[in-house]
Amino acid sequence: MIAPVRWAGDRMLLLDQTRLPAEEVTRECRRWEEVADAIRTLVVRGAPAIGVAAAFGVVLAARASAAATADGLLADLETAIKGLAATRPTAVNLFWALERMRRVAHELAARGAPPDALRARLAREAEAILAEDLAANRALGAHGAALVPPGARILTHCNAGALATAGYGTALGVIRTAHAQGKVALVWVDETRPVLQGARLTAWECAREGIPHRLVADAAAGALMARGLVDLVITGADRIAANGDTANKIGTYALAVLARHHGVPFYVAAPWSTIDPTLPSGREIPIEERDPAEVRALGGRPVAPAESPAYNPAFDVTPAELITAIVTERGVVRPPYRFGPAATPGDPAPAPAGR
Amino acid sequence: MIAPVRWAGDRMLLLDQTRLPAEEVTRECRRWEEVADAIRTLVVRGAPAIGVAAAFGVVLAARASAAATADGLLADLETAIKGLAATRPTAVNLFWALERMRRVAHELAARGAPPDALRARLAREAEAILAEDLAANRALGAHGAALVPPGARILTHCNAGALATAGYGTALGVIRTAHAQGKVALVWVDETRPVLQGARLTAWECAREGIPHRLVADAAAGALMARGLVDLVITGADRIAANGDTANKIGTYALAVLARHHGVPFYVAAPWSTIDPTLPSGREIPIEERDPAEVRALGGRPVAPAESPAYNPAFDVTPAELITAIVTERGVVRPPYRFGPAATPGDPAPAPAGR
Repeated sequence: MIAPVRWAGDRMLLLDQTRLPAEEVTRECRRWEEVADAIRTLVVRGAPAIGVAAAFGVVLAARASAAATADGLLADLETAIKGLAATRPTAVNLFWALERMRRVAHELAARGAPPDALRARLAREAEAILAEDLAANRALGAHGAALVPPGARILTHCNAGALATAGYGTALGVIRTAHAQGKVALVWVDETRPVLQGARLTAWECAREGIPHRLVADAAAGALMARGLVDLVITGADRIAANGDTANKIGTYALAVLARHHGVPFYVAAPWSTIDPTLPSGREIPIEERDPAEVRALGGRPVAPAESPAYNPAFDVTPAELITAIVTERGVVRPPYRFGPAATPGDPAPAPAGR
Repeated sequence: MIAPVRWAGDRMLLLDQTRLPAEEVTRECRRWEEVADAIRTLVVRGAPAIGVAAAFGVVLAARASAAATADGLLADLETAIKGLAATRPTAVNLFWALERMRRVAHELAARGAPPDALRARLAREAEAILAEDLAANRALGAHGAALVPPGARILTHCNAGALATAGYGTALGVIRTAHAQGKVALVWVDETRPVLQGARLTAWECAREGIPHRLVADAAAGALMARGLVDLVITGADRIAANGDTANKIGTYALAVLARHHGVPFYVAAPWSTIDPTLPSGREIPIEERDPAEVRALGGRPVAPAESPAYNPAFDVTPAELITAIVTERGVVRPPYRFGPAATPGDPAPAPAGR
């Protein structure tokens, strides 16, 4: 199994995604600051995986804290939580996982638990987040695979696979399950400039698992659809607003418009923790702008004039009306999407609308 | 002035576009086979520039031929014309320029001219093709600039600039003229994977001419339009069918769909020689598929697993109904497009429909 985030009892082990597919290098994190750096520099990426890594970052902060009192430990955790939260603005799983860790620590402290009990409890909570993500992805895969027709030619963007999660994948988890069911004829893999998560990571996962795939430039997706070569599009999500508007890797929105134009179903696959019911619509989703150097160069090699300005929004927002269905571990949700506060992860699971 | 193709009396000088923007290297061609190689490897690219270069390739073939009779020379020319025609299947200007050179040679031979007269006449014809392309581009720029509103934010794809022509540009020629008129607020430059003609060439032309521009990943175009940041899209063309369907760099079609979805005008700019009235529609336009290695790597550096298959269609076809207008040196043509045989370049210029 591809395991992008592992816990070794006293340190976190990350599969360095910036080195794939050329090398499989493991990065050890023993301090929360190293985790924050790993998230910021895309050593670990993908909304669910970022959430898991951040949770272990809090565990590392708890271990590193010399506080002798619960209050002292909570103060040290707060520093780490703020530092980890400042790494990536768009993916909501990051904030969700940090909030979950914070709440566990405060609840236990309120009951008078000593610092070491908090440390042990936080480690169990992070491990639970990891295990739940894996279980959610497998359930999501089963729900989503039911949407895939036999002989499907599926287009996906960026990497929403094992590498983006605790180890199975959301959009690529659906494809994994459908492939195991013998239904996948071909996966069109968008290369996903500027960071090339499709070319480097999704193609690597497909190659490793024997899933038939072909890599294409992002700009080719429209022509593939026009020629009738795409039966469905499925992508992951970094944040889903209450009305279903979905932030995901730049280029996702264009795919949704193209899919609508060609009558091709467009699906979003994400664990329930990606839903942010506090945001009424996609207009309120913060969009991360990354370094223009990611567009001007590739692997340090310039591909444009040094003096040319570039613009590098890392995500875009796809309006709900372009999304055929959202696949979660709780089932397939169809429009109209109305994710209310009661749908917050951890609360009792409502039956998804239109399941 | 940026001059991608120059004639030095006994040899052709090409600005090597594969080395830009890092280096400005001139490649000398003294044999037609070197010209064919330069076209095939994208040292010279862009439909109009390919036509000009191919014409000089015929001149070089005429100079290299030792034939003492006109018939012998015509036979040698035919070999060169066939070899040059086999380099790129999509751009029609290539075939148009070669046919024009062939006709000139045959007409002169039929009037009993000796080989040296043919050689001299062919050199003059190639120089005329170059001069006509430059003049056509300037006229086209003036017609097209009238479509550009003040403060325009213009998105363009690939490179349809000086480098793609004899020296002024088609889509970027329109932008040049509009910029000289003070109407261009910003040019959004698509990087245009896999060969990066936008990042490497269009950004370089804009930087050199002081045209305000920002480079973006191809996948960002949809999000820019959704945010109201694009006032019009203009691209070049490699071949235009009789009904207005237009083949251009892969990704152009997706831009046209996105522009339509957002109510943004979508213009094509091309010299009249890009129109192929022999093809009823875009379905008959041959689409060049290039080496998948162009997608799997960048400048020799792998960006995907070596075992991952890739697909690299270099062009796509935009149906006429998505094209707001086609800008030519003869004026602005609006739908319905009906380019008949009488519109063949060299024939008397008809008034373009809807001028």
